Amino acid sequence: MGTTQLESVPEPKYWHLKTVLSEALDSEFSVGEILPNERDLAARFGVARATLRQALEQLELEGRLQRRRGVGTTVAPPRVGVAVGTEQHAWPGAGEDAWQSVDCVLAAPPAAVADVLETGSEELVHTVRRSRVSHGQPVAAELLYIPESSVPDLSAIDTPSATARARAVLRELQRLELEGQDRAVELGSARADDAKELDRLPGAPVLVVTTRFFAEGRTAAVSVATYRADTCRLTFADSGNVEIHHGPERQAS
Amino acid sequence: MGTTQLESVPEPKYWHLKTVLSEALDSEFSVGEILPNERDLAARFGVARATLRQALEQLELEGRLQRRRGVGTTVAPPRVGVAVGTEQHAWPGAGEDAWQSVDCVLAAPPAAVADVLETGSEELVHTVRRSRVSHGQPVAAELLYIPESSVPDLSAIDTPSATARARAVLRELQRLELEGQDRAVELGSARADDAKELDRLPGAPVLVVTTRFFAEGRTAAVSVATYRADTCRLTFADSGNVEIHHGPERQAS
Repeated sequence: MGTTQLESVPEPKYWHLKTVLSEALDSEFSVGEILPNERDLAARFGVARATLRQALEQLELEGRLQRRRGVGTTVAPPRVGVAVGTEQHAWPGAGEDAWQSVDCVLAAPPAAVADVLETGSEELVHTVRRSRVSHGQPVAAELLYIPESSVPDLSAIDTPSATARARAVLRELQRLELEGQDRAVELGSARADDAKELDRLPGAPVLVVTTRFFAEGRTAAVSVATYRADTCRLTFADSGNVEIHHGPERQAS
Repeated sequence: MGTTQLESVPEPKYWHLKTVLSEALDSEFSVGEILPNERDLAARFGVARATLRQALEQLELEGRLQRRRGVGTTVAPPRVGVAVGTEQHAWPGAGEDAWQSVDCVLAAPPAAVADVLETGSEELVHTVRRSRVSHGQPVAAELLYIPESSVPDLSAIDTPSATARARAVLRELQRLELEGQDRAVELGSARADDAKELDRLPGAPVLVVTTRFFAEGRTAAVSVATYRADTCRLTFADSGNVEIHHGPERQAS
């Protein structure tokens, strides 16, 4: 695939190169394999290094490549489907779920969270940090915000164990009757603390899932969960009647 | 905020700068306002241009800034919540929905779609292209794949009108009883044709929503919808009992 053909297309050059590279990944490389260096790749496809880098960035966005420090660029395994919102009638931490509590603090929430909770910006909120592991990989970091008014009978927590504190708050939350929940998904960039937990650099693209839990006619808790965008596809099942098997292993495009 | 403070933090410098910039956006700028040029901004915050650019990229990922050719960098309006999957018992195109059919062709689907549909790679599939507009802005472009076996009684479509062809295929699809659907959300980059429809450059980050529609015990249709990641937050409502109002207007972080 020479320079001439790349120059004759109306699309940006890096875009066409991306398609060509993507086909090469399918036919010549296997998962985990390290790509040749940028200079060799640029020479092979007859493009400038800058063009090559743009194409590699695209393929990284699409989850086809992983770039890791000290390793280089490798062919990524297919994204893992991670179920979101399947337990519609369960509070966080009730029954079996994929999350592990890491910490729990009582603190003023970010302004956007205070807005959703309709708490004053002064009101303290229990903030439970949880993490989710799937197939042995960290896939998500969550902050779960629970206003004191949602757990009014919580007695003073007198344990030095962060996970015990988290359990106590979640147990108390579960006394409320959960009336429903909704969620939103948007693109974000990993905060420094989340990035560390997810084994990514700060600022890496992430999928941010904000869930509101409704009880007693109001928003009783808010979860802000940050999923790795490179390795995860979030799956939603609307129907309880249908068995959900694995989806398409790759973005259909 | 001088250089010294930026250098003393353990986080990457661009990350700390991003936080500082974000606060400046809140306090000093209004939506739509054009930011000073990169040189002036870099001087103000005492950072290198490269560091500034990284921070601006982060803020763009988070939907705080928009960069447009010939305009410059402007403060973005809050993301718009776009409902996904609220009509759980309706086929695409049945009743009122937010999508407009643009085109319809009979063609071999991409390999990943053929896998999901369990059609042979040779089998032709009706491909309906639809677009979705919200608040006067294009927010999503969709390709809806319907195997011929899902619309067996479709008579030859003999109209030159692409939208009439699309309507005929969707009408025929609606004869099947919809048993359920599921969906997956993942990060992608805009294909050239989608990018044009969404008023973005090819390769811009997008949220790709893949929906499988189940009928007669199999996958009867697949939709691959590409949403603008800069302006949209996708909203999912699990519960029909709870009125959903506007969510947090900004990523809670």
